[in-house]
Amino acid sequence: MNEVTLKRLAQELNLSIATVSRALQDSYEVSLQTKMRVKALAAELNYEPNAYASSLRRNISKTIGVVIPEVNNTFFSLAINGIEEIARQSGYHVLIYITHDEYEREVAITQYLTGGRVDGLLMSVASESREFAHLQKLHVSKPAIVFFDRVCQAIATASVTTNDYESGYLATQHLIEAGCRHIAYLQVSGTLSIGRLRMQGYQAALRDHDLPYEEALVLSGDGNDECNTERIIKLLRHRPEIDGIFASVEHLAISSYYACQTLDRAIPAAIKVVGFSNLGVAALLAPSLTTITQPAYEMGKAAAGILLGAIEKKRAILSAQSVVLKSELVARRSTAS
Amino acid sequence: MNEVTLKRLAQELNLSIATVSRALQDSYEVSLQTKMRVKALAAELNYEPNAYASSLRRNISKTIGVVIPEVNNTFFSLAINGIEEIARQSGYHVLIYITHDEYEREVAITQYLTGGRVDGLLMSVASESREFAHLQKLHVSKPAIVFFDRVCQAIATASVTTNDYESGYLATQHLIEAGCRHIAYLQVSGTLSIGRLRMQGYQAALRDHDLPYEEALVLSGDGNDECNTERIIKLLRHRPEIDGIFASVEHLAISSYYACQTLDRAIPAAIKVVGFSNLGVAALLAPSLTTITQPAYEMGKAAAGILLGAIEKKRAILSAQSVVLKSELVARRSTAS
Repeated sequence: MNEVTLKRLAQELNLSIATVSRALQDSYEVSLQTKMRVKALAAELNYEPNAYASSLRRNISKTIGVVIPEVNNTFFSLAINGIEEIARQSGYHVLIYITHDEYEREVAITQYLTGGRVDGLLMSVASESREFAHLQKLHVSKPAIVFFDRVCQAIATASVTTNDYESGYLATQHLIEAGCRHIAYLQVSGTLSIGRLRMQGYQAALRDHDLPYEEALVLSGDGNDECNTERIIKLLRHRPEIDGIFASVEHLAISSYYACQTLDRAIPAAIKVVGFSNLGVAALLAPSLTTITQPAYEMGKAAAGILLGAIEKKRAILSAQSVVLKSELVARRSTAS
Repeated sequence: MNEVTLKRLAQELNLSIATVSRALQDSYEVSLQTKMRVKALAAELNYEPNAYASSLRRNISKTIGVVIPEVNNTFFSLAINGIEEIARQSGYHVLIYITHDEYEREVAITQYLTGGRVDGLLMSVASESREFAHLQKLHVSKPAIVFFDRVCQAIATASVTTNDYESGYLATQHLIEAGCRHIAYLQVSGTLSIGRLRMQGYQAALRDHDLPYEEALVLSGDGNDECNTERIIKLLRHRPEIDGIFASVEHLAISSYYACQTLDRAIPAAIKVVGFSNLGVAALLAPSLTTITQPAYEMGKAAAGILLGAIEKKRAILSAQSVVLKSELVARRSTAS
């Protein structure tokens, strides 16, 4: 099928390309009658302005990007729903990019986004990222950035997070009150701000209850669920006194369940588990999982609100606009005494 | 910060904008010395060509779009991982769009994509969509389209699906062999090709085992999990003889569990459940869930392979390139006799 271009419209109507273009843009330089002729033919032939050309002309894309580490994680899928809700109200399109928690992919995506493809960006940093030059470069280029959940401290902008320190404290205290004395801490990466804060909460709770902090009880996983399960099995075999697990991300809580199943260690009788999670089936697990539940949907809404507010008002985003929302401990069978 | 434009580079170097542009594009019309001067300053000032402008110039975006109904569904998150694996090998960026199973959002997204923002599109149709003019319009415009899982039959292109009819038959037969005589069928929408095929398999299995098909045992849900649970509770109260549930999508299997929990109907003793699902925690549920597991990752890879093959070779995609991959019945406790 022939593509319908401005040129073709101009030829068929015996007008100049410039006139056709102006007519489609409702320019005052073109008569109403001509505008109507042009628009009628454009509609008839299904003419669509080239997106790149019209973005270039108008210098706006009405598009925001969302960069997340993984898609198979209830927290992020709920946050995306919140982001889309706000974006939709303001007439913005949402493009989603996944880093798979890999530094290289994050760099490739930010390079791709540096050239002005989006008006703004909501971002949760990949756990592998230890260098942030790519984010600094992106930040000095056009798009406004708001971080959510996983923050890059090196960039001066707003972020939407939860009370990770208090939640880490609360989860650990909950295990201690349920009788645990040897609590393992599972994390994805030590460099992430959320990992650090949750762990500081864990350490503080141990200290306040006169329990020692042991580095050997801290396990760092990655994006591979099977490897993580193997790592946890190894830890539990090596340190059979472990009677509590605090998983600081959802998929490590699931891996803990599989590890305990493999080792035939009953939850909660032999070992208790609490995990950060927004899993809809947490209450249906055997046993039901005690969770620190983040306000994922609300966080997505808040982050999108800050970003779109700045874009629409052409204002810079300030660190002072950052928001901290509260997570909630939902006690279930996995930590029952 | 001042944006670094071609104009600014030209001013600082005392060259014309055209010369700077040609130098950055390695044109033979510009001397090596000038090219080096231009590139050195561009690097120093962090100059980034405008993405729209350079796409317009080169008329390629090296980008594919993925349009899916929901993100909080293990099937789609695994399929995305497969798509990204193939796209990455070919150096393509992947943009993800979510319709939330809503017709209106699907129309808005396809309009947005009609103008040439992507080279190609992988799509799973929204369950609400009953009119397909927007897809036909998109299809006659530039991007190549391959459907996966949820197909729009009105568009002549390739699709990647699973053996939905056989799987529907197998799931129903499995329930009958486990002793069920009154099997409810849960679906999202009657118009979707996958829903139709799975239901035809369900009907055929009933027929082959001399069980009547009853329209009153077919329940149509939507994207709201809580409403779906309420609907299932109502159905189970109204028809207490129901002893088996076949959920044709993941979230309806989860809603069935919550409904049975609410009504205190024991799975599998009082009622057995089988569901289409790629849920990683299926084996950890109380009781573990019998699933029809689709090769989601492989389906994503296959669909992306067909699409990128066509884009790279500038060939049209033929219906004959369609692929049907096999799903697998994984029997667990929820259907134990």
